[in-house]
This record gives sequence, structure tokens and C-alpha cells, in this order.
Amino acid sequence: MIIVMKPTSTEADVKNIVNKLEECGLKAHLSKGESITIIGVVGDKHIFLEKNPQLMPGVEKLVHVSESYKLSNKKFHPEPTVIDIDGVKIGGDNFVIMAGPCAVESEQQMFETAEAVLAGGAQILRGGAYKPRTSPYSFQGLEVDGLKYMANARKKYGLKIISEVTSNAAIEAAKGYVDIIQIGARNMQNFELLKTAGKTNIPVMLKRGISATIDEWLNAAEYIMSEGNQNVILCERGIRTYETSTRNTLDLSAIPVVKSKSHLPIIVDPSHATGVREYVAPLAKAAIAAGADGLMIEVHPNPAIALSDGPQSLNPEDFKKLCGELRPFIELMGRKF
Amino acid sequence: MIIVMKPTSTEADVKNIVNKLEECGLKAHLSKGESITIIGVVGDKHIFLEKNPQLMPGVEKLVHVSESYKLSNKKFHPEPTVIDIDGVKIGGDNFVIMAGPCAVESEQQMFETAEAVLAGGAQILRGGAYKPRTSPYSFQGLEVDGLKYMANARKKYGLKIISEVTSNAAIEAAKGYVDIIQIGARNMQNFELLKTAGKTNIPVMLKRGISATIDEWLNAAEYIMSEGNQNVILCERGIRTYETSTRNTLDLSAIPVVKSKSHLPIIVDPSHATGVREYVAPLAKAAIAAGADGLMIEVHPNPAIALSDGPQSLNPEDFKKLCGELRPFIELMGRKF
Amino acid sequence: MIIVMKPTSTEADVKNIVNKLEECGLKAHLSKGESITIIGVVGDKHIFLEKNPQLMPGVEKLVHVSESYKLSNKKFHPEPTVIDIDGVKIGGDNFVIMAGPCAVESEQQMFETAEAVLAGGAQILRGGAYKPRTSPYSFQGLEVDGLKYMANARKKYGLKIISEVTSNAAIEAAKGYVDIIQIGARNMQNFELLKTAGKTNIPVMLKRGISATIDEWLNAAEYIMSEGNQNVILCERGIRTYETSTRNTLDLSAIPVVKSKSHLPIIVDPSHATGVREYVAPLAKAAIAAGADGLMIEVHPNPAIALSDGPQSLNPEDFKKLCGELRPFIELMGRKF
Amino acid sequence: MIIVMKPTSTEADVKNIVNKLEECGLKAHLSKGESITIIGVVGDKHIFLEKNPQLMPGVEKLVHVSESYKLSNKKFHPEPTVIDIDGVKIGGDNFVIMAGPCAVESEQQMFETAEAVLAGGAQILRGGAYKPRTSPYSFQGLEVDGLKYMANARKKYGLKIISEVTSNAAIEAAKGYVDIIQIGARNMQNFELLKTAGKTNIPVMLKRGISATIDEWLNAAEYIMSEGNQNVILCERGIRTYETSTRNTLDLSAIPVVKSKSHLPIIVDPSHATGVREYVAPLAKAAIAAGADGLMIEVHPNPAIALSDGPQSLNPEDFKKLCGELRPFIELMGRKF
Repeated sequence: MIIVMKPTSTEADVKNIVNKLEECGLKAHLSKGESITIIGVVGDKHIFLEKNPQLMPGVEKLVHVSESYKLSNKKFHPEPTVIDIDGVKIGGDNFVIMAGPCAVESEQQMFETAEAVLAGGAQILRGGAYKPRTSPYSFQGLEVDGLKYMANARKKYGLKIISEVTSNAAIEAAKGYVDIIQIGARNMQNFELLKTAGKTNIPVMLKRGISATIDEWLNAAEYIMSEGNQNVILCERGIRTYETSTRNTLDLSAIPVVKSKSHLPIIVDPSHATGVREYVAPLAKAAIAAGADGLMIEVHPNPAIALSDGPQSLNPEDFKKLCGELRPFIELMGRKF
Repeated sequence: MIIVMKPTSTEADVKNIVNKLEECGLKAHLSKGESITIIGVVGDKHIFLEKNPQLMPGVEKLVHVSESYKLSNKKFHPEPTVIDIDGVKIGGDNFVIMAGPCAVESEQQMFETAEAVLAGGAQILRGGAYKPRTSPYSFQGLEVDGLKYMANARKKYGLKIISEVTSNAAIEAAKGYVDIIQIGARNMQNFELLKTAGKTNIPVMLKRGISATIDEWLNAAEYIMSEGNQNVILCERGIRTYETSTRNTLDLSAIPVVKSKSHLPIIVDPSHATGVREYVAPLAKAAIAAGADGLMIEVHPNPAIALSDGPQSLNPEDFKKLCGELRPFIELMGRKF
Repeated sequence: MIIVMKPTSTEADVKNIVNKLEECGLKAHLSKGESITIIGVVGDKHIFLEKNPQLMPGVEKLVHVSESYKLSNKKFHPEPTVIDIDGVKIGGDNFVIMAGPCAVESEQQMFETAEAVLAGGAQILRGGAYKPRTSPYSFQGLEVDGLKYMANARKKYGLKIISEVTSNAAIEAAKGYVDIIQIGARNMQNFELLKTAGKTNIPVMLKRGISATIDEWLNAAEYIMSEGNQNVILCERGIRTYETSTRNTLDLSAIPVVKSKSHLPIIVDPSHATGVREYVAPLAKAAIAAGADGLMIEVHPNPAIALSDGPQSLNPEDFKKLCGELRPFIELMGRKF
Repeated sequence: MIIVMKPTSTEADVKNIVNKLEECGLKAHLSKGESITIIGVVGDKHIFLEKNPQLMPGVEKLVHVSESYKLSNKKFHPEPTVIDIDGVKIGGDNFVIMAGPCAVESEQQMFETAEAVLAGGAQILRGGAYKPRTSPYSFQGLEVDGLKYMANARKKYGLKIISEVTSNAAIEAAKGYVDIIQIGARNMQNFELLKTAGKTNIPVMLKRGISATIDEWLNAAEYIMSEGNQNVILCERGIRTYETSTRNTLDLSAIPVVKSKSHLPIIVDPSHATGVREYVAPLAKAAIAAGADGLMIEVHPNPAIALSDGPQSLNPEDFKKLCGELRPFIELMGRKF
């Protein structure tokens, strides 16, 4: 940490801070310039920071030079995390595709989708049983019934399944059915939910909040991991910007940034990010090329009657075609799929 | 709602949509131009929208012309809502100041703050007992003990109290102690929490999400109101933008926008929005002048030792001085304080 | 400046940087921690920075602690700048209102507007003769004829005038007619234009770029000032965010931020910022209360036939009424108007 | 266009608008609902819009359903534009790489860079002779001398060259030297410059403004094209968002969006977008996979001594290696390179 002093700060101000640092067992390194003095501080600053050094006389600002997340930090865990879900591996040199409808609507729908998912070569079936919707008057999901339909599809077709949870009760319900718990963008900083998910031993896919920085995202992952659950998958799903031609702006730079800061796998969801079916294929290819560990794609047996997000869903035929187009890109990246 | 057809759409495409509309009991109004046909639709479009008209052949896009929120909508409730908390009124021509520390730290701290709040003429004591923090390693709040200290301060000093809740359990705990439940920015779209708050009869202050549109904010209020609790107070606390000289960008335009769309009262929090003590006073005055129904201001008996957000907190003396400066602006706006 | 070293950097890396600093006549102050070493550097870093220290072995990042603007910086010019335009003063404890149409359309229109401006007590008549428009097919302004109509209105009504310039040729043309040159948001980083304006001795009002940081804005002012022209007025006119209920998001925090960093006066334009007539009055009051040195407000003798931005323009009667409402706020702020 | 009436509008309000539309030779199509009336309007609305219909009694808002750009619009020019620069083709199924330093520093530097560019198989040498810089105290470019060094490199190595222009004078100077004029992000809405570039017959590469919508960008292209110059290349270079881990957020969704709206070729600049050398390769691959027509990449013979943007520049060896990695992606996309 660096403490930058105001040009108007006095020698006494500086001395006061040095004393405070030393009281906390820290060593101060002074750099005195003509107009500005800066104080370098190294070591465990935990106790010192509780004294609100920003408010000490003469202080202009604090500059932090190390991250606040530890378990998700690559510095302390240089090897990429590989999550093994009963043989389906996420991370490392593996590639995974998760596909399915935004909302679970019926068992029949999940069976038809599972067939499409299998036909495309994807490994994981997605479906929403608990739906967070902007308006309370929109369809809110089938809840436990939805989870059961998914579990039946898993049994019948041998796929793994992932589903979003929106409350502690939903986590409790999902435990018996799903292979991966998804925490959605709106709940990325619902810390209660993160902690509860961290107390399970089920892998968690954590979507990036709609305007979360990568730093906040990794800190949210830290909430899960610090409770004991190390199996966290990140999912980039578009961030909010001023541009309106896509629903959100897919931030593919997040892939190399996350890879440089963390060991956790990162998945990309081009369907939610764009909200437009035609844009899914080019951005899915781009995500692979940028180094993503997998994709989440919306597929519906009949998008025209989907209860949620039909416009961005692919039908089974288009999904199969897309998977065929993606395969050479996945191979070019040296990934197993 | 308006359906805009693609330039390449056929007569059959248009006829198909007209038929679908009529099946749903709706009437289609065609406007055929040289290159584009548009179809006006009026009435209850609920059933028709479930058919995903965006995906019908020839459709370019749907344009919605009415809002999805109803109970929070001024169109259906033109008079401003006034919430009466045992004599302290929020909304209409009243003005309210809520003040206190970011985090409750001790009973003594709450008593000292309560004295400062009273001295400034404010009516409501704030304090955080459940703290949502970016990092799991930051101080997370005193929980029920914090609520008790606040309740004791209420009893001793005759102030109303407000405190944030972050889970259903926290709502349950807060019920016996607080006058107003606060739902924070990170939980604005934690719909489970909104619904639970909507099932209580305690007034709820709903902070705007860090990148929520005003439309999403009013829809979030709708989640609370549609469960039966009509006593919702909105709180603008800054939105996320690219600008870094303040923590967030305080969107004071939200005040007249909310006033034109909704009957709910709106409070402004300049302390969290800016993160800088020196900017609190000018923006508090600006909020009053823009028509806010109240302010939330961070006050701490000794900001230098605050466990959270010390740098933006005022000490009791500065708070009293600020209240003195604000009073003539409040009076100029014709508000009762 | 602070140089933060990578955890993997070696002693030799650090020594190399210290040597390079010393070669440039600078002194390095080392802070060695367990995992990170930081190097404080003070003095004129100009030559050293040309060596791209970010690329030197072992360097993680550079942290700049002082601003790159000097002439616009309050540190080196603590007193507020007051610009005196033949008796009309901008800055200090003065308050100024600039009003007029978005586009000059005719002499008659400017005369009628000038009467309205005078009736409201405003001092400066605005009008656009060179109009930057998003589409090349929109009205582009009357150019020199527009300037002449404005100059005639100035003569007849004794007002000062301000008009936007969009090219060196427009500056040349404007020289003979206007009291203040306006540089619009789209040209805030048109450095050629800034330099040309800096070579005149006419006061320049520099609007903030649509997504400019305050730091970039003050650097743009620096371009004008470093050419010799110290009479720069800043104008906040809304920044681009994701929110669509107003055209832009008026950033009133910019007022106290600018006041803390610079000595230049700052004006607020609520008309362009919101694009909605009803929101002009509340935000004009808010701007005054936040400490603005003046306002720019769109007024048109007949908004219904305005060639540009009619929807946000006030008619003469409403403008006069608004000025009456603003006056007590201006007085409360202790400003001369 | 659709006119949405207020719920409070009267029959007379609607009749008034219908009359005004008919006076302008337009036909109104009414859709009357229980609470809202909407009026569909088709045909050339040019004259009607000058009457400011937003201000007519009873009008809530106008909804535009067609774009304001024409020459850059795919609707009127469905085939992709291919620009042929003396054998080097941009657009269609061609792929192009532009590479070189941010700033031209010397002839020797340009010769060394040209060798690197050739070695990588790239076709176009870039270099900045006129540099727009945030601070007036940063290096501003060699101007005409820089252009000459580039032209000499072109002659010697048989490459095409591209260089940025920042003023009409710079366009005049560049005419004799460059194959492509670049207009930078800061000047995307410098309409004077766009018009001047439109009057030349030199291809123009138009970078997206730092917070420009795709619609504004295509309108800016329209400024160039409406002056007669149809050879416009778009260049995505990152947009401004709240995320700070990259300099800007590269918006790769812009590629499929532009492809769906326009026939113009689109190039991607991952160097400026990220500002970090390590992120250039993954995002270059992603851009190819998303369907870009080319790349612009910063290369410097010795990034450690570059006068501008060294940290994001590749050295010749790394550039050659990158080109080798990119080639299979380009081939997979079926592009000629």
C-alpha cells in the first residue's frame, strides 16, 4: 500500500503516520519530493486500515497495490483449477458446452432439449427452475417441479445438469437434483446466497454482475471459496454499457484478464449477452478463440413458444449446426471436447 | 405495443400476425408504407406476448409503449404517497433527514450519534447491522446486537430508526426493532428479499441498484408492492459510470424522472454516492433543490475510527453545521422539516 | 510516481530501475516487503517516462500521484478565476445565465429571444451558427449569417453573446462577432481546435466530452491555456451512461470535484443534459445549490417551430418564470446576479 | 415512425396531428386503445419532423423505426463493400492486417517495422504522424516528416500505408503520401474533418468514438460518404465502460451488429482497446472468429523505447509469432490472407 500525502502536509503529519504504522508493526518507507511525500507500506495492513488512515491529517489518498481476494487469486494457486463432475471436466485443456432453455417448462420440453444437447455433443443441460425476472408479473419458474424434470432428463440421457438458485431455499431444493448450482448476475453480490452456496460441496457457476468489475467478481467468488467450496466456475454474460444494439456488451477481454489473475475456469454466455439469435454463433466462436473454457447457449425445442428468452434461443437443428461449426475452433485451441 | 415488420416481410406474414392477434382477442391496426409496415396493438397483450411475436416470420421488432409496473405508477395513483411513521411523514410536502453511521459498532456509538442526529434536527437514525461488503474479509456487521443498540437509542432519544436487511433471516430479526427496512443497492434485484419485505407491513426504503435503470427500479418496487406492502421509499445513491473522481455518479435527474413516473417518495444519499466528505454538503443542497423528499447522510461520532466508510462520514459538529445550511434550502422548497 | 514491482521481480530488476532513475537525475525510495517491492520517485519524471518504465523487467505498474494539467490546476492557482467580459463577470461570487436557442434561425428569432433573455435578467445570449449534428441530413446551421444576426441582437439589446465553433474557419469567422467561443462536447478532444482557440484572446467555454473524465476535461482546458488564453469556462452538460430516461446523465458531482481541483469557473447546461423541458427547472436549481457559477438554458421564441432541440427549449414566458424561481436560490448561495 | 399519444390526450389532439400529417402529404394510421392511441406514419417525414411533433398537444413520444443513415446502410446496398487499394483488398472474403507503431519516430524505425510487418505477412504499415494526446505536454508527432518516413518505407518494402489525420491541414499533407487516411476515436464526430475526408478519393478508416453507439458511428460514416467518398472502413477500438482492468472494453459484438446493418468492412484494434500486450493475441483471434475483416496491431522495433503506447506494442519477433498463430483462424473463417 502507498500513502500519498497532500502537498500541504507537514513533517508532523508524516511523523504521525509513521508512528501509527509502527504501532501496528509495519515499516514505513518515505519518499520525499519537492511537493509530495509518499509513504510505502508493506506487510499485513489489516489493523492499520481499521484506523481509517484516509482521515489522518495530511493524507491525500491510499493506493492499494495488492488484491483483496486470496483463494481465487492465481498468485497463490498458479495452476488452473479443473473441476471434475463425475467425468465431465471444466477448466485446464477441457472444453464444455452447457445448453438448454432459459426456463424449464415441462418434462417433455427437457427431454427434447436433452436430445438436442446430446446431438450437438454438449455435456451439460441447463434449465431455469427459479427465474429472477425484472417484472413481478412475468413467469417466475416451475421451482421444484422444474428441478425434477431436469433430473429425469439427466437420468434418461446421461447429461450433467445446471440450474440457477435465487434463495437459500432454492439451494436446499437444488441439492438433491443438480450437478452445478448457478448464481445469476443479479445475485452476484447477494452475499448471503454466496455463503450458503459456499457451504455446499456442489460446484457453483457464478455469473458476473451486470456492472461488476472483474475485481468485484473475484471477490464474490472469494465469498463462496472462503466457506470451503473451491469449485467455482466464472461466467461472463455481458456488462451494462450505453450501447443498445445488443442487450448487454459481451466483455471478451474478461477472459484473458481472468486468466491472468485467477486459476478459476471461465465460461461465456453469448445468448444472454446479446439477446439476439443471429449474434450467438459469431460470439461463441470468438469466445473460444479468446480462450474461454466453455460456453452456455440457450436452446429450446421450439423457441417460438418459449416462456422466456425465445428470441435468443436456438432450435435443436440450429444448435447442432452451430456445434459443428464450433468444433474446429475448439480443436484449433487444443481443447478436448 | 407496436410491431414493426421487416422490409422483406410479405403480406402473408402480416396476415399471420393479424390472425394471431385476433385469436388473442386483440385488434390490429395496420400502417402500410412503401418499405415498412407497422402494426399497432392495443389491449391486454399478456397472452399474445407468450407466443413470442419477435420470432414470427417477418417481424423486425416490438416497441412497448406502456410501462410494466402498475402499483408504483403515477398514472394509476396520481397523488404522491405520504408514509406516516408514527408522526414522521415521508413524501408530499414533508422533508426528512436520516443520519447515522454506515455500521453499528456499539451502543455507546449509537447513543452519541443519536444525540448528533437530534441536534441537527433530523428525524431518523440510520445504522447498518448487516453489512454487505465486497470482500468476505471485511467487517460484516454486528447483526442482532446492532439492531438492539439501535432500538435502545430509539427509545432513549425518540428517533425513528432504519437499518439494512440482506436476507430473509435479517428481515425476521429486524421486524421487532426497526421502523424502516432498507434494501441495499446490491440486493435491488434480489427478488426473494423483495417479496419477503413485501409481506411485512414495515415501510421499505429501496436503494437503486448500482446500474439499475429507473424502469428496473420501479419494477423492483413493484415486487414489494405486489405482495401487499405499499409503503415503499426510493433512494438514489449514485450509479456506476466510467468517472472515477467520485465513487459513483449521483444521478439527481432521477428525482424529476421518478416524480414524473411514480407517486413514491425519493430520498438521496450523497455520502455513499460520492465517497468523499467534502462533496456531501453541495450535493445535499442540490438534492433538496431538485425536489428530493429527504436525505440520508453518514454521521459518526468519530469518523477516524469508523469500522466502515469513515472517509465519507461527517462528525457530529459538521453534521449540525450542515443541517443549519440545508434548512433555508428546505424552506425555499416549501417543505416541512 | 510510484513503481510497483511484480512479486516475481529480482533484486537485479530493482537495481536496474534505480540506476535508470539516477541516470535521469531522480532519486529512488525503496519499500521492500515480503512479496512486493515499491519504488517511490519524486522530481521531474519527464525524461524517465520516455524510457517506457512499464516495460522494464519486473515492473507491474506505475501509479501517478500528481495531475498532468498545470495551468488549470488549483494547486498552482488557488484563487478562483474571474473572467470579466466588459463588465459581465463569470466565476468567483458572480452568477451568470446564458440563454437562447440551440440554432440561430433568423434575425427576428434572435431579437425575440434577446428580449426574453433580458426579461429574465440573464446576461448572455446563446445561439448556434455552426451546428454539429449526428446525421449529415439534419440542419447544419446558418454559419456567418447566424453570427451576424447574433451580433445585431447584441448591439440592439446590450447582451453579451456566445456561439459554438466547430472548425478553425469558424473561429476565424466568430472572432469579429462573439464575446465567448463555445467548444462543444464532440470537439472536446479536437486538439487542433483547442489550440486555435488558445491562440485567440476570446474567452472559451469548453463543454465536457460526452464520456470525458474530469481529468481529461481539465487536460483539454490545458490545451487552450498552454497556448496563452487563460480565460476558460467549463460547462457540464451530461455524460453518457446506460440510463435512457434522460438524454444524458447530468453529473452535478462534477461541480464540487472541479472546484476542488481547478480554479476555472463551471457552468451547467440542464437543457442538453436532460433533453426534456420539464426537467430543466429542478436541475437548474440543483446546479445552483451545488455551487455552479452559472447556467446555460435553451430558450426559443416558439419551441414548436425550432429547427433543433425544440422539445427541451423553454418559451419566453416559461424562461422568465424560471428565472424568478431561480433568483432566491442564487441569493441563498451568496451570488451576485 | 410511430407517434404515441398521452393517456390524457383528447380526440382533438389526435385530429390536429392527423391534419398536420396530411398537410405534409403523409397518411396517418390510427390505433386507438382503451388508454393509449398510437399513430403510425409512413413516407418521407422530413417536412413534418421540422414542425417538432414532440411538442404538439397530447404527444407522449415519437418512435423512429428506420435508420437515418442511407449510404452506409445494408438495406440499400446488400453486397459487402470491397475496397481495392492497388491490389490489397479490404472487405468481402479478404483479410487484412495493419501493423506498426503508435507514433512514427524516425525513418530507421519505420524501415525496421516494415520488415517486421512483411515478415508477419501483413499488408499495411501503420504509423502516427499527427498524434492526438490527452495532455498538451505529451509528444505530438513528427507531422509531415513522419509521413515522409512512412512513404519511403512504402516505396522500399512495397507495403500500403495508413496514418491518422487530425485536421484539414493534415489531410492536405497526407494526400500525397498515404493509402488510407485514419480518423481517430476522438474525432469521430469532428464533422468538419469527416466532410473534408469525404471530399478526397482516399479510403478512410473511421475509428469508433470512445462512447459512440453503432448508430452514431454509421452516421459518422455517412458524413464521409455523403460527400462522395464511398471507401470507408470501420474500426472497433474499444468503448468506455466502468471496467478498469483494460484501457477500454473491446466490443466484439459490434462486428456481427455492423455486418447486419451495413455493407462496410470492419477492422478491430485489440492493441488500443486493451492497452496490455498480453491481451492482444487472444483478442486478435477472437476478432477473427467473430468475423472481422482485418486487424490493426501495434508493432514497434523496440517497444521499450517507443515514444507512445510502448506497453501495448509487440516487438517484431512476437508479431511474427502472432501472425503465425492467427493464420489458421483466418483460414478457418475462409478468408484470403
